[in-house]
Amino acid sequence: MAGKADFDVIIVGGGATGLSAALYTSRAMLKTAIVERLAPGGQILLTDVIENYPGFPDGITGPELSQLYERQAVKYGAEVLYDSVIGLKNLDGAVKTVVGSEGEYRAKAIIISSGGDHNKLEVPGEEEYSGKGVSYCATCDGNFFRDMPVAVVGGGDSAMQESLYLTQMTEKVTVLHRRDKLRASKILQDRAMKHPKIEFKWNTVVERVQGNGLMECVLLKNTHSGETSTLDVPGLFIFVGFHPNTGFLRESSIELDGGGHIIANMAMETNVPGVYGAGDVRANSDRQLGTAVGDGITAALSAYHYIEESGDDTPFPQTL
Amino acid sequence: MAGKADFDVIIVGGGATGLSAALYTSRAMLKTAIVERLAPGGQILLTDVIENYPGFPDGITGPELSQLYERQAVKYGAEVLYDSVIGLKNLDGAVKTVVGSEGEYRAKAIIISSGGDHNKLEVPGEEEYSGKGVSYCATCDGNFFRDMPVAVVGGGDSAMQESLYLTQMTEKVTVLHRRDKLRASKILQDRAMKHPKIEFKWNTVVERVQGNGLMECVLLKNTHSGETSTLDVPGLFIFVGFHPNTGFLRESSIELDGGGHIIANMAMETNVPGVYGAGDVRANSDRQLGTAVGDGITAALSAYHYIEESGDDTPFPQTL
Repeated sequence: MAGKADFDVIIVGGGATGLSAALYTSRAMLKTAIVERLAPGGQILLTDVIENYPGFPDGITGPELSQLYERQAVKYGAEVLYDSVIGLKNLDGAVKTVVGSEGEYRAKAIIISSGGDHNKLEVPGEEEYSGKGVSYCATCDGNFFRDMPVAVVGGGDSAMQESLYLTQMTEKVTVLHRRDKLRASKILQDRAMKHPKIEFKWNTVVERVQGNGLMECVLLKNTHSGETSTLDVPGLFIFVGFHPNTGFLRESSIELDGGGHIIANMAMETNVPGVYGAGDVRANSDRQLGTAVGDGITAALSAYHYIEESGDDTPFPQTL
Repeated sequence: MAGKADFDVIIVGGGATGLSAALYTSRAMLKTAIVERLAPGGQILLTDVIENYPGFPDGITGPELSQLYERQAVKYGAEVLYDSVIGLKNLDGAVKTVVGSEGEYRAKAIIISSGGDHNKLEVPGEEEYSGKGVSYCATCDGNFFRDMPVAVVGGGDSAMQESLYLTQMTEKVTVLHRRDKLRASKILQDRAMKHPKIEFKWNTVVERVQGNGLMECVLLKNTHSGETSTLDVPGLFIFVGFHPNTGFLRESSIELDGGGHIIANMAMETNVPGVYGAGDVRANSDRQLGTAVGDGITAALSAYHYIEESGDDTPFPQTL
């Protein structure tokens, strides 16, 4: 009725979550496609050294690990399609449609692992020194700065939580905030404010990140006085927001939270049967590589059970 | 009041979950101990080749991967203590106690990742050919038997689910069941019974697994007629139950489900603040290596936040 499925499972987004999901669905002999707009790998493609993915005690570069993930999924038959997903349709049908810029792809189940992006300051040097001092993840990179001073940009809950985390291993944390008060919840504010290792610079914006191969300092400007200054730090952690890539779901029936994250349960099920949300794109994700991988596997097993339970014994491909 | 903590975090059980948790807590500069009765590694120590842990496209042996996990956790300061945990106490206090056969260990937070064991048939050859034909995990090992016949032992939900999974890649699945009816839910029974690739042998027990380096056949006995026969299969999947290692929690206030699994939410929190349950030991675990790792990381971050939120700024060790 809805026509033939092109695939058993389509995975939207080929980061660690999507590649892990594809490994499991293709090993379950489900015909699997990953739709990815750029290269598979996702956020780790932009990561120099990963120290906290279990199994690599000497660390591994993001691009290397992402190739290992991709090779493993492709080995068992997963295909990578290059396209930008702009919407989903027929979600209530047995065959659901993923709409891309280049074409439409139909599948029995859809796993959404489209990830998200950290908001950027968009100042000179930020991109150049990303991974060379500039970071968006304290649990990932805090240990590179043991007993060194670092700066944090932001005034929300994340900025306070990550600042507190960074006090554990760094010498001192200078919080740079463009206003004179924090947006963070009162309790986090209090903990950060009374912490002996945290210093606040109010009404302060970063104008530029500077260095020489590695980042060495940030140029600051006081938004009230206009005064500029230099802060010598080898590390700058930027926490000015994260936005999940769910714009293409805006017209769909998939439930999102206020921040645009997919609401999914422990089995990665969304409110729509046969559609799963996993990894950084889901609400309450820990946004760690190892948890992204776990999410992808759970979503894959849920999708497998959904397809298997549809009681569809005929060999693929078929008309539904 | 409850005395000094020996550690910030104690992790009960040093399998993939516990070692991943330890990696994260020690990177967060929390003083971390893993209490393990045997060698760290857990179930994967008994696994020949692991094909489905993302990052190792050519596969890796269980003992090798477990050494990588351990080396990575220890690198950041986690300690391994060799002891059998027999109970927990003072769970409501700021300092909680893990009771081992050899001593007591006190910590601010406890992560329980004690895993579990697959029930065995306990017949000759079962252990000898484990990993050489005998398996307890279809998602792990099904692909070793593409287009070959396999046998499954069991009559419950797991046995039916895994049999259906195995039809995806194997030639034929013979279900061996010691009774003349299944314990599995009606819907799973129906799906298995009508599947063209699944055949049932009722009132049948495995007497012995035989082979020559690799498993080659199973010797069967009909429990009614006493007749014996041989089934030539290179793979035998045994699903006669799984028991989580939670005997030491029996006297504690930690909530368990009917099967003895720890009830934990998406953040791996149990009903007791500061105590987490993660990996195969928790209810509804997918029991995959990648999900075990994700669980461990989530539990570690929850434990970190719990300790950090206790507002305890004084350097470790301290009197609480």
